[in-house]
Amino acid sequence: MPEISLHKPYPASAVTEWDYTTEVAVIGFGAAGACAAIEAADAGAQVMLFERNSGSGGASGLSGGEIYIGGGGGTDVQRAAGFEDSTEDFAAYLKAAGGPCADEAKCDLYAAEALNHFAWLKAQGVPYRGNYLPGKHIEPTDDSTLIWSGSEAAAPFCDLAKPAPRGHVIQHMGWGGGRPLVDILEASARAKGVEVVADARAVALIRDDERIVGVVVRIDNQNRFVRASKGVVLATGGFVFNEEMRRKHCPDTFKLNDPIGDKDDGAGILLGMGAGGDAIHMDQFFTTCPWTMPESHAYGVFVNAQGQRFINEDCYHGRVSRCAVDQPGGKVYLLLDNAHFVQPMDFARMSIAGTGDTWEEVEGELELPKGTLSATMAVYNDHAREGRDPLFGKRPPILTPLDQGPFVALELNFQTSYFSFFTLGGLRTSTRGEVLDRAGQPVSGLFAAGRCTSGLPAWGHGYSSGMSLADCTFFGRQAGRAAAG
Amino acid sequence: MPEISLHKPYPASAVTEWDYTTEVAVIGFGAAGACAAIEAADAGAQVMLFERNSGSGGASGLSGGEIYIGGGGGTDVQRAAGFEDSTEDFAAYLKAAGGPCADEAKCDLYAAEALNHFAWLKAQGVPYRGNYLPGKHIEPTDDSTLIWSGSEAAAPFCDLAKPAPRGHVIQHMGWGGGRPLVDILEASARAKGVEVVADARAVALIRDDERIVGVVVRIDNQNRFVRASKGVVLATGGFVFNEEMRRKHCPDTFKLNDPIGDKDDGAGILLGMGAGGDAIHMDQFFTTCPWTMPESHAYGVFVNAQGQRFINEDCYHGRVSRCAVDQPGGKVYLLLDNAHFVQPMDFARMSIAGTGDTWEEVEGELELPKGTLSATMAVYNDHAREGRDPLFGKRPPILTPLDQGPFVALELNFQTSYFSFFTLGGLRTSTRGEVLDRAGQPVSGLFAAGRCTSGLPAWGHGYSSGMSLADCTFFGRQAGRAAAG
Repeated sequence: MPEISLHKPYPASAVTEWDYTTEVAVIGFGAAGACAAIEAADAGAQVMLFERNSGSGGASGLSGGEIYIGGGGGTDVQRAAGFEDSTEDFAAYLKAAGGPCADEAKCDLYAAEALNHFAWLKAQGVPYRGNYLPGKHIEPTDDSTLIWSGSEAAAPFCDLAKPAPRGHVIQHMGWGGGRPLVDILEASARAKGVEVVADARAVALIRDDERIVGVVVRIDNQNRFVRASKGVVLATGGFVFNEEMRRKHCPDTFKLNDPIGDKDDGAGILLGMGAGGDAIHMDQFFTTCPWTMPESHAYGVFVNAQGQRFINEDCYHGRVSRCAVDQPGGKVYLLLDNAHFVQPMDFARMSIAGTGDTWEEVEGELELPKGTLSATMAVYNDHAREGRDPLFGKRPPILTPLDQGPFVALELNFQTSYFSFFTLGGLRTSTRGEVLDRAGQPVSGLFAAGRCTSGLPAWGHGYSSGMSLADCTFFGRQAGRAAAG
Repeated sequence: MPEISLHKPYPASAVTEWDYTTEVAVIGFGAAGACAAIEAADAGAQVMLFERNSGSGGASGLSGGEIYIGGGGGTDVQRAAGFEDSTEDFAAYLKAAGGPCADEAKCDLYAAEALNHFAWLKAQGVPYRGNYLPGKHIEPTDDSTLIWSGSEAAAPFCDLAKPAPRGHVIQHMGWGGGRPLVDILEASARAKGVEVVADARAVALIRDDERIVGVVVRIDNQNRFVRASKGVVLATGGFVFNEEMRRKHCPDTFKLNDPIGDKDDGAGILLGMGAGGDAIHMDQFFTTCPWTMPESHAYGVFVNAQGQRFINEDCYHGRVSRCAVDQPGGKVYLLLDNAHFVQPMDFARMSIAGTGDTWEEVEGELELPKGTLSATMAVYNDHAREGRDPLFGKRPPILTPLDQGPFVALELNFQTSYFSFFTLGGLRTSTRGEVLDRAGQPVSGLFAAGRCTSGLPAWGHGYSSGMSLADCTFFGRQAGRAAAG
């Protein structure tokens, strides 16, 4: 009997009995898998969804339930709050956020379709309160809808695309809107007749000649053979919990200690590659340390272990954190004055590394050479008083002199502070969700979405909150529709 | 008839007639391919070597012919010059230079075997004058043998392994020792009966069931079928000339404009992946701008477009250049005083961006904010007078105050200065040169060496001159022996 392997499709000719038969098999019950299943069912296909856990969720269920939406003049929420948002600006921001890894076709398509996608989400039952919450928030602590969730208003992004807030959050009191979001998508999928098989882990694809025609799932320690006559959709997440894959493709993540996800072991990427799929941008990862909480800390200045600034601190907390992790010395400092410092949140595990009545004193307490941090802050404050930041383009109001002592330096240590991270690289897919091979041709019968693919959130330095769920939900739908078609 | 493709092995069952029959087929006639062919022939195998160009060379032929060698107490050249070099220190340096991408097994094996490898190179006829040339050299301009060719003596490497110079250069007057090195290896291969077929480009592997048993080569616009009963060795170089692969795997290289190599289009990586091989660290690349020439420029200080230092400038020119390319703003400046500045080499395309009698004046000419570059240089000079560099650990004698004007800032612009670059990621191989699949198992009949693999020079920030040729020649031999065995 042929081997059951993530790395090589099992020959259909060796299957003696099919345990399940369906048209579309979706693997993974996070947001991407749920949306693929809904859309495939809406297209008239018989759909089965296999999930390794006992229920839905995946990494989406651990998220804030925030989806990056804009363009077309703006959503009703954006417009009500006074923000116009053209499709061109939206696409331009998505491309800038994708940096050197941007998939321009995906950016253009999503920018053009995002308003329709928002309507679709509402039609599934996702509720939105509809209000705008100004300020810097990682997630709303109330049930507000619209927040700034990226680097839109900060240089260099604000010069590339007219800024607008685009983070649309499910109506849900407090953090953790991802769980109810997935619950609603699950209910919609079940209502449309999607058959869900839980505690079923995909362990091999099944190939007939050149076409993927099914999947082997492991249930109660037995291999079960699933025939999927129209196609298989992989929606199994990234590889943050696969140390071997991280070592081979994304070793810089070993600087950090707080992977986030839900059994994201890269299985879908391996299944896809084993079937001939291409995997791209495998070195990319998101990270963030929640340094903008309390919100007054967003007015701070970052320096590295050499006492140098390295970023426009007005950018998205994840971009700032990602650039922080590039700095030598294993840690960075967040500098605050008396007007802006409050006790940091425990869970961030930031510590007070130095204090002083002058920046020179802080410099001394940090044991930085004389004339480093103090010179950095003198330059910063001199220009902040004039309302400009010639080094990194930071702008008022977040640009404000930090010159009223006492002062404090919070240490963000890559190893001991809370730097959550997950991977962004994965299978290369078309805008239709087809898995592409290294020649750029679709692998027949195989589709994928979410973090087992490289999608809208392609570049760790450009990630913005809501981009991954936008990618999961929209391109999950694309994959489901293509599989059913 | 099945398709002839880089991406998928051609079925042996479809071959109607074999145009060539051999035991070992080596693809690519740079140093890796030549050494593989020699070793396979020495092991008693019939060997054919296919090269797409009309003659040998590859990227090796464009190199300096420098090979990174040490350990075992030191080579005769090292010891004659007063350098002891333990295997442990050599291995420790190789691992530090591999950074997060290091293949520890390869580092350990090469460190243990390098002296034997040096003897083997001499036995092939590679001449070495045997002398040590002190100073900072990219390549010797005379026919000297031993130079410092990495970051061995610079922090942080000098604290991880006892430093020794390890760059062993073929006896050859002036730059460009790679050409005669390959000529000698070619002569050795031919003397051992290796049959060379030039103008023959590999376009597909041939597979029989699970085993690679040959290769399709394109000769005079015809597909020719080569049977290789014992195995195929891929030695086709990296992918610096494949823009699509760079876009998918190594997009930061698009910051730069001077790829170096010889038709390095990633074909071997694609062939290997198509046969099930794993490709790793595909985002890694080497780059250097030859800023240490004239040699007095090695005493300079680098600042980025924010006027900040970012590296111990005593490190290898390539490490400094690679860190430079990480800096925001598209350019960096090399700062020199009157005692160290001479007209830069034309080919580096560095330009004088600012001058002044004080660092404040230079800062102004560069239009940097007051108190940035000047503060950087004040801190540097204050500490240099005390013989220390608390920021980056630079040490005398290269650490010297730059305080006697007039001063000059040379601009190294990523787009317009000469930043040569090539890729480092590639197939994952065992220490025996077997191509490994994603499960870590050898792909039967398939071997690889050189820059179509990820090897000793795995990490762009740690590259040292001679590491790639060490990897090509030593692991080329390993691959050839394994293929013949």
